[in-house]
Amino acid sequence: MRVMSAPVITFLSDYGLADHFVGVCHAVIAGICPDARIIDLSHGIPRHNARAGALTLRGALPYTPVGVHIAVVDPDVGAERRAVALQTADGRILVGPDNGVLMLAAEFAGGVVEAVDIAHSPFRLEPVSATFHGRDIFAAVAARLAAGARIADAGTPIDPADLITLDLPRPRREADELVAHVVYVDRFGNVALDAGHDDLPESGLKLGRGVELSLRADERIEGHFVRTFADVEPGAPLLYEDADRRLALAISHGDAAATFRLGLDDELRIRPA
Amino acid sequence: MRVMSAPVITFLSDYGLADHFVGVCHAVIAGICPDARIIDLSHGIPRHNARAGALTLRGALPYTPVGVHIAVVDPDVGAERRAVALQTADGRILVGPDNGVLMLAAEFAGGVVEAVDIAHSPFRLEPVSATFHGRDIFAAVAARLAAGARIADAGTPIDPADLITLDLPRPRREADELVAHVVYVDRFGNVALDAGHDDLPESGLKLGRGVELSLRADERIEGHFVRTFADVEPGAPLLYEDADRRLALAISHGDAAATFRLGLDDELRIRPA
Amino acid sequence: MRVMSAPVITFLSDYGLADHFVGVCHAVIAGICPDARIIDLSHGIPRHNARAGALTLRGALPYTPVGVHIAVVDPDVGAERRAVALQTADGRILVGPDNGVLMLAAEFAGGVVEAVDIAHSPFRLEPVSATFHGRDIFAAVAARLAAGARIADAGTPIDPADLITLDLPRPRREADELVAHVVYVDRFGNVALDAGHDDLPESGLKLGRGVELSLRADERIEGHFVRTFADVEPGAPLLYEDADRRLALAISHGDAAATFRLGLDDELRIRPA
Repeated sequence: MRVMSAPVITFLSDYGLADHFVGVCHAVIAGICPDARIIDLSHGIPRHNARAGALTLRGALPYTPVGVHIAVVDPDVGAERRAVALQTADGRILVGPDNGVLMLAAEFAGGVVEAVDIAHSPFRLEPVSATFHGRDIFAAVAARLAAGARIADAGTPIDPADLITLDLPRPRREADELVAHVVYVDRFGNVALDAGHDDLPESGLKLGRGVELSLRADERIEGHFVRTFADVEPGAPLLYEDADRRLALAISHGDAAATFRLGLDDELRIRPA
Repeated sequence: MRVMSAPVITFLSDYGLADHFVGVCHAVIAGICPDARIIDLSHGIPRHNARAGALTLRGALPYTPVGVHIAVVDPDVGAERRAVALQTADGRILVGPDNGVLMLAAEFAGGVVEAVDIAHSPFRLEPVSATFHGRDIFAAVAARLAAGARIADAGTPIDPADLITLDLPRPRREADELVAHVVYVDRFGNVALDAGHDDLPESGLKLGRGVELSLRADERIEGHFVRTFADVEPGAPLLYEDADRRLALAISHGDAAATFRLGLDDELRIRPA
Repeated sequence: MRVMSAPVITFLSDYGLADHFVGVCHAVIAGICPDARIIDLSHGIPRHNARAGALTLRGALPYTPVGVHIAVVDPDVGAERRAVALQTADGRILVGPDNGVLMLAAEFAGGVVEAVDIAHSPFRLEPVSATFHGRDIFAAVAARLAAGARIADAGTPIDPADLITLDLPRPRREADELVAHVVYVDRFGNVALDAGHDDLPESGLKLGRGVELSLRADERIEGHFVRTFADVEPGAPLLYEDADRRLALAISHGDAAATFRLGLDDELRIRPA
């Protein structure tokens, strides 16, 4: 007798946990694929922010068993945007709206080898509501796929090249500065940037040395580039490489986002002090 | 060898997730019925609002496998209110305080065919605290029932006709207007009303046409009755049928509850524009 | 054929649920020990408050199956503090930073019989980040232990007597008063004190009788010492024994912490009225 592991479904959304949206999707999955193990990666994605959803899913995937991965950040639910299921080269299945939220994960997973439009999937719940596709389409289709259905049977084929990708800001070098943008602020007020591990060699930043950051017209932050919070005094700013290998700005035992009034997309100019 | 699905326990409460209340109830269940699959329908029910709990459980149940369904919204914990377990006609078991929180779900489930008072259940944890019946009574009794105990052994029989029901506001027609009330506000600020799918034929509302809503003395909202958010411009108000088939008011990409300062029980008068 | 229950892992942290930290730890565990049942005891511990984490874990443990218990409240992540796994006399394994967060639970569990430093555990994920030991060390090591690895293989032995303990405030008697301190405030604004069931005999408090509490310079609260909220009128203050057998201050259907502006460590002087 061979014991199979339960199929894994991960679930990420901007639904929050105050309402019943997430719970009802769990219920739908449990009804269709009773032995699925559901992992809630996050439901705190800022409302309608497909990019934050994409980045979070991308950051989590290397730590996540191969399975079916649902991402619902869907400002255009009920409109013409497509609903899709994507087979990736490394054996994962990604399910969500075709607005880019799945595409950073798809890239990490080796690219999309098969894609179907599931808006009219035979696996969806009927009648499909106009506003809760998480329940009626994404959870229902994902559960059938986790239960072993073939992706080709989940919808109508589409060309992977036609999938919508995100227009991401990119860090750049200008003279002796690294120009980066805020891509995520966590509950501790730590501020992650789009610059990361691969930008370090050219940045001139040295571990343990000082760093200067400019933001807005004439505000300047002086801190240190260090490994972790405890490498500076409580209350002191630091630049560090975060757990997703992005450069990030923090205040030890403090809240950098609130202190420096930083939010998504804000631009920072970084140079060695 | 026949493989049975794990028993399903759903759990809804106003406990929130900031404290350990929900986690401890999970722990109690896992100790008594280790193979139960627990689905957290919602723990964000507004504090002490049994009606919001009842409506949420009612909305979720059609999407939920048959199982044991716990609902704890219990402003009178430790007082004389009864604690009950209810067997429904469709094979579900509902567990919670006897304050109406279970009764909309019971109605959906075909009515109550057997009811017991579990305040002194042999399945409860001893000693029973005066303030945390979710842990000591509801979770413990539900877990034993999910593990196969008979409801008749869970407590002392009571007459289903004696169970307490909720006094719900009802929508009504007045001249050419549909008078409805706010029953739920979700995290997106979408405002669900007690009027729903069945009130549409007499409302004169036509999909795609204009709608006027009056609230308070002399405030008026002009919008459109449409299928979904994307059918109007961002920032525009819309009336639509939500995923639970209730009429609801929203602002596309906005927050209707905040913008129009709407809360539970507020009355709205609706008419075609 | 003997059916074993799935191994239980409980998880408590100050990560909150807005970000993906908790979800990624779940994913790591599911990858290493696919049949583990993970119970989230709470992720709402106030940021960096190891004492609140310790008290919450201690309160939950009597209701929790024996298993592997992770607690991550870790203000000094990446610094010199040790990461540990502890075998307790009653068969539990506790995993977390060596800052006291595990030690009240260890005491309840009969004391520590074996302790290892897991900072360089062979079970950790490589490369270990400097800021997310929850993922790279605690979740990974806990999952391996839940899957059956021996604690001796998880790290290097340390002397249990060297583990760091918390410096807790203690209630005391002064003349006819019981002097206690706020140790926890829940989402309802109920205020738990460090005085508890064992302090009652000497307190002179009698169930159903009046009680006076002094806080700050000259503010006095008059209330009743009762079993539960419903024993006083809505809006009235009460002192009661909470579900963890601590003395606690509440306002029936109200918020005592907000009304009386009480927070962690505040001192209250209690006497019979």
